[in-house]
Amino acid sequence: MLSRNQIKLIRSLRQKKFRLQHQLFVVEGNKSVSELLESSLQIDQIYAGEEWVDDHASALSKLGVRKVTVVKQKELDQASLLSTAPNVLALVEPPSYSLSKNELNGRFSLALDGVRDPGNMGTIIRLCDWFGCRDILCSEDCVDWTNPKVVQATMGSFSRVRIHYMKELDRFLAASGLPIYAARMDGKSYREIEIPSEGLLLMGSESHGIRFEAADERAISIPGSGQTESLNVGVACGILMSALHL
Amino acid sequence: MLSRNQIKLIRSLRQKKFRLQHQLFVVEGNKSVSELLESSLQIDQIYAGEEWVDDHASALSKLGVRKVTVVKQKELDQASLLSTAPNVLALVEPPSYSLSKNELNGRFSLALDGVRDPGNMGTIIRLCDWFGCRDILCSEDCVDWTNPKVVQATMGSFSRVRIHYMKELDRFLAASGLPIYAARMDGKSYREIEIPSEGLLLMGSESHGIRFEAADERAISIPGSGQTESLNVGVACGILMSALHL
Repeated sequence: MLSRNQIKLIRSLRQKKFRLQHQLFVVEGNKSVSELLESSLQIDQIYAGEEWVDDHASALSKLGVRKVTVVKQKELDQASLLSTAPNVLALVEPPSYSLSKNELNGRFSLALDGVRDPGNMGTIIRLCDWFGCRDILCSEDCVDWTNPKVVQATMGSFSRVRIHYMKELDRFLAASGLPIYAARMDGKSYREIEIPSEGLLLMGSESHGIRFEAADERAISIPGSGQTESLNVGVACGILMSALHL
Repeated sequence: MLSRNQIKLIRSLRQKKFRLQHQLFVVEGNKSVSELLESSLQIDQIYAGEEWVDDHASALSKLGVRKVTVVKQKELDQASLLSTAPNVLALVEPPSYSLSKNELNGRFSLALDGVRDPGNMGTIIRLCDWFGCRDILCSEDCVDWTNPKVVQATMGSFSRVRIHYMKELDRFLAASGLPIYAARMDGKSYREIEIPSEGLLLMGSESHGIRFEAADERAISIPGSGQTESLNVGVACGILMSALHL
């Protein structure tokens, strides 16, 4: 059973301040929670219908019975942060990832400056999962990835990509000593650059672009022959990640 | 002034059946309506605040005074289909585009099978505008592009891309005689194919994929090293359009 207080707690986790206060975020739906069970993330509690619990008995056995509560669909309807409540909802502890600049050597990572739209952030996390890009370095004002809209948009990929928020993203990038491929409208076409073996792809938001000049920056762009001024940041990120053979 | 009946009419245009009945769709916001004024689409009526009308006096003069109504923000708030009403709203006649299969020769076009999500459709229209891809051929069950969510997501690009709905998309594609590049999970990596000079890129929905085998089909895919099963269809479309040098 879900008590009134539990429902109130879950619903409060829409807001960042309550996610910080309780050190919990919400994951909903069969696909996302199933992927969660295979990840190293710490699950605090799973609320699910009887059938879902039966179907996932073996995966749940590792978790321990105290962490699983069978509830009615009506209770999930009340607690859910989605417009249509799925039959399972999990409360998860936000992981704390550490990252030293040397860890980025020999690989390709992504850096985001001021990406605030939850849907775009979710799309980008899903892209990183697709291309096997482990780390996303975010400026502090990027949308919090434990925001339920971001979690939902990642389609489960949030459990396999590590997102780091940086007080001074520009300084961290400079200290890494890696080449920075910055997506800019006036950059060189990506078709004209050599595919690098390591580095960072830096993307800004659609409205503000990248707000600083990165050390060792190579500005790149997506050649287009049409008339629109910009592409969606998630789409642009996908095109450049694929072009750079991430 | 906006009468109650006019507000009712505008709000009804959320639904396809009323858009069909009245042969009108809604475009909102400064950017989209400004681009509309430069397009060949037929505007039925513009409702805007006094300031917006003053700022766009020269563009509006071509339209004729009978097609412009100055209204209060309160009235736009009531009529708007968006959660935050902008200061301008236009009613537009859906264009009827014709397309003969020979028109597709020597160019690259896009074909969509069962893409139902309005946000994805909007992203894809914006992408076509970016890459200068003039025509999108849609199966009949793709989301209607005059849906307000699609129009909004195109960021004005809807006025420069021609979207065609086909009763039998597979037959039309076969009749074109062009090579069809079909996005499939088990297709050949796009990096291994030669960049074609003409043809069609065929995309399915995330949930159902492409529901038919196209004549002269070359299945292509996006190489990824991660663990997620699929990419967002808008993002995948962007990556492949860019890769095929559309």
